[in-house]
Amino acid sequence: MTPDASAAPAEPLMLREMREAPAVVRRLLNENQDAVARLANAIRERQPAYAVTIARGSSDHACTVLKYALETQLSLPVASLGPSVHTLYGARLDLAGALVIAVSQSGASPDVVENVRMAREGGALTVALVNVEDSPLAEAAEFTLPLRCGPEKAVAATKSYLASLCAFLPVLAELTGDEALKRALDALPEQLAHTLTLEDAAHELAGRYRFADNLLILARGHHYGVAQEAALKLKETCGIHAEAYSAAEFSHGPKRLLAEGLPLLGFASADAAWEATRQAYDDLRAAGADLRLLGPVAGADLPTPLGGHPLTDPVTSTLAFYLFVAHLALERGLDPDRPPLLSKVTKTR
Amino acid sequence: MTPDASAAPAEPLMLREMREAPAVVRRLLNENQDAVARLANAIRERQPAYAVTIARGSSDHACTVLKYALETQLSLPVASLGPSVHTLYGARLDLAGALVIAVSQSGASPDVVENVRMAREGGALTVALVNVEDSPLAEAAEFTLPLRCGPEKAVAATKSYLASLCAFLPVLAELTGDEALKRALDALPEQLAHTLTLEDAAHELAGRYRFADNLLILARGHHYGVAQEAALKLKETCGIHAEAYSAAEFSHGPKRLLAEGLPLLGFASADAAWEATRQAYDDLRAAGADLRLLGPVAGADLPTPLGGHPLTDPVTSTLAFYLFVAHLALERGLDPDRPPLLSKVTKTR
Repeated sequence: MTPDASAAPAEPLMLREMREAPAVVRRLLNENQDAVARLANAIRERQPAYAVTIARGSSDHACTVLKYALETQLSLPVASLGPSVHTLYGARLDLAGALVIAVSQSGASPDVVENVRMAREGGALTVALVNVEDSPLAEAAEFTLPLRCGPEKAVAATKSYLASLCAFLPVLAELTGDEALKRALDALPEQLAHTLTLEDAAHELAGRYRFADNLLILARGHHYGVAQEAALKLKETCGIHAEAYSAAEFSHGPKRLLAEGLPLLGFASADAAWEATRQAYDDLRAAGADLRLLGPVAGADLPTPLGGHPLTDPVTSTLAFYLFVAHLALERGLDPDRPPLLSKVTKTR
Repeated sequence: MTPDASAAPAEPLMLREMREAPAVVRRLLNENQDAVARLANAIRERQPAYAVTIARGSSDHACTVLKYALETQLSLPVASLGPSVHTLYGARLDLAGALVIAVSQSGASPDVVENVRMAREGGALTVALVNVEDSPLAEAAEFTLPLRCGPEKAVAATKSYLASLCAFLPVLAELTGDEALKRALDALPEQLAHTLTLEDAAHELAGRYRFADNLLILARGHHYGVAQEAALKLKETCGIHAEAYSAAEFSHGPKRLLAEGLPLLGFASADAAWEATRQAYDDLRAAGADLRLLGPVAGADLPTPLGGHPLTDPVTSTLAFYLFVAHLALERGLDPDRPPLLSKVTKTR
């Protein structure tokens, strides 16, 4: 008797949605060309003195990645705005001359929307990265970069985070004329498709952490916001107390936890931070740390394809991590789509 | 036979140094008056468009507290600069027109010093908060606000963190003319002395966490950087995997960990964020969370004195927390002055 397909357990939504990543990113790159050109022109004309990001949750972690991109590519310092400064403390920040970027899949968080309204009224150049194009956030901002994900139903967002990592990169390529970045973006859907073929390796690595209660996720620079996102997903889908830490900050205290046997998962990066990061990782291993690596370097425990640009590598690393974490949840007997106590949209004030 | 005093175990340095807090803060307020006036004048004259902080470890957590203070009091958006953007990625951020504040007890971190040099060369108004007044950082910055701590020997910094929370407040009081803040600063040494009398209550609360492996530290706004500092100290001195989280971000994922029995310690605040924070805490308790509170509100498990200003309350909350965490280390049979694997000064690049 052959197994009855209709009786097979459905694949979790989280895995199904992350498999859409190549198509989502291809669509985003193709369909946002006009929006990218308009925004790049506005930035050229108004010459913002600095940038501000506004977001919560996973979207805020995408802003951390964006911060390093804006700082290294445009030399533009980036502030992360705590929405409560306006909504609770009543401060109207003076954001004239700033480039203000808000990120929200739903575009529905009232505090993010209110802060973008304040920024726009104050003379900032405002941009919203949103999946829901008729959302209050898209309406509040002067410019919009749609995430083009289609509906995202899983509680653990994946494709919208990946899209929010990508959406601003064509603007940077346009402003800097970085041909390597343009090529890396063109190749990115293919790279993401290749990353999806790493599922068996991701599954195998996940097995090691089946019984882990704690995990520290290390990274620097362009991958730091990926580490933040990874720690959140480990909490959400696996109930593991995972925390992101800068590999540079680790010796300022957290290193103490190695004496308690805390395992580490580090992101590798094929960029200018790698030599210092690798050295920090070697030192940790010498101190007895159980450290595994994920990223676009040879010898990583989960080696992702080398995409040719430090700004696109975090996108493939994130997808590889998502494969890992979804399989880890399943290994632990958990349904990644039904985390206890969580719901899809949170509306904070 | 009476006990032989010479045979009694010496009190840990960490506790001895934190007891100096009232004297340190009094000295800082008295001796920095000229430096405060000069810096306030420079800020008035040059009208910075935004601010940037540069620091690592505990000093970076003091910068988080400072960020909320600058944003709510001066409407000045504040970016936290990752030193590696310059030292590893080679980006020279355009910081002309920025107020750049670096914080370092030792003034010796090469990456912090290099970033301040870059900022000053680029036309920023640079300020260093340092304890070691003849340090490279003090030399690199145009203005200095000394922390006036005297030598700090404990690996777990306490008095220098408290001083770094205080050092910029007189500048804010001068710029805003906030009389309530001036009065709260005058009263602060006394408030800190009063906080030291809470040691028995801090000890008693610590007993609850004797066997805890994990802890989440919650706060919002002015207390958020205190939560970051608290989490670091719990790691350093107690080997507890403690993590700081914004009470507003908690429902974006970390809430899931309540199902694993994760205990929570929340900071209370007598400010505009309290009503929303209290509501979030009530919701967490209703969801079954084991949540204890520390701060200047009635009903807190460790109630600190109400100092009369939201910018000085975090200073007393921090000192109360330090009493708590030092006694927790002792309860766990650990010497807070000798954390495994850590040393006093870390020099990152």
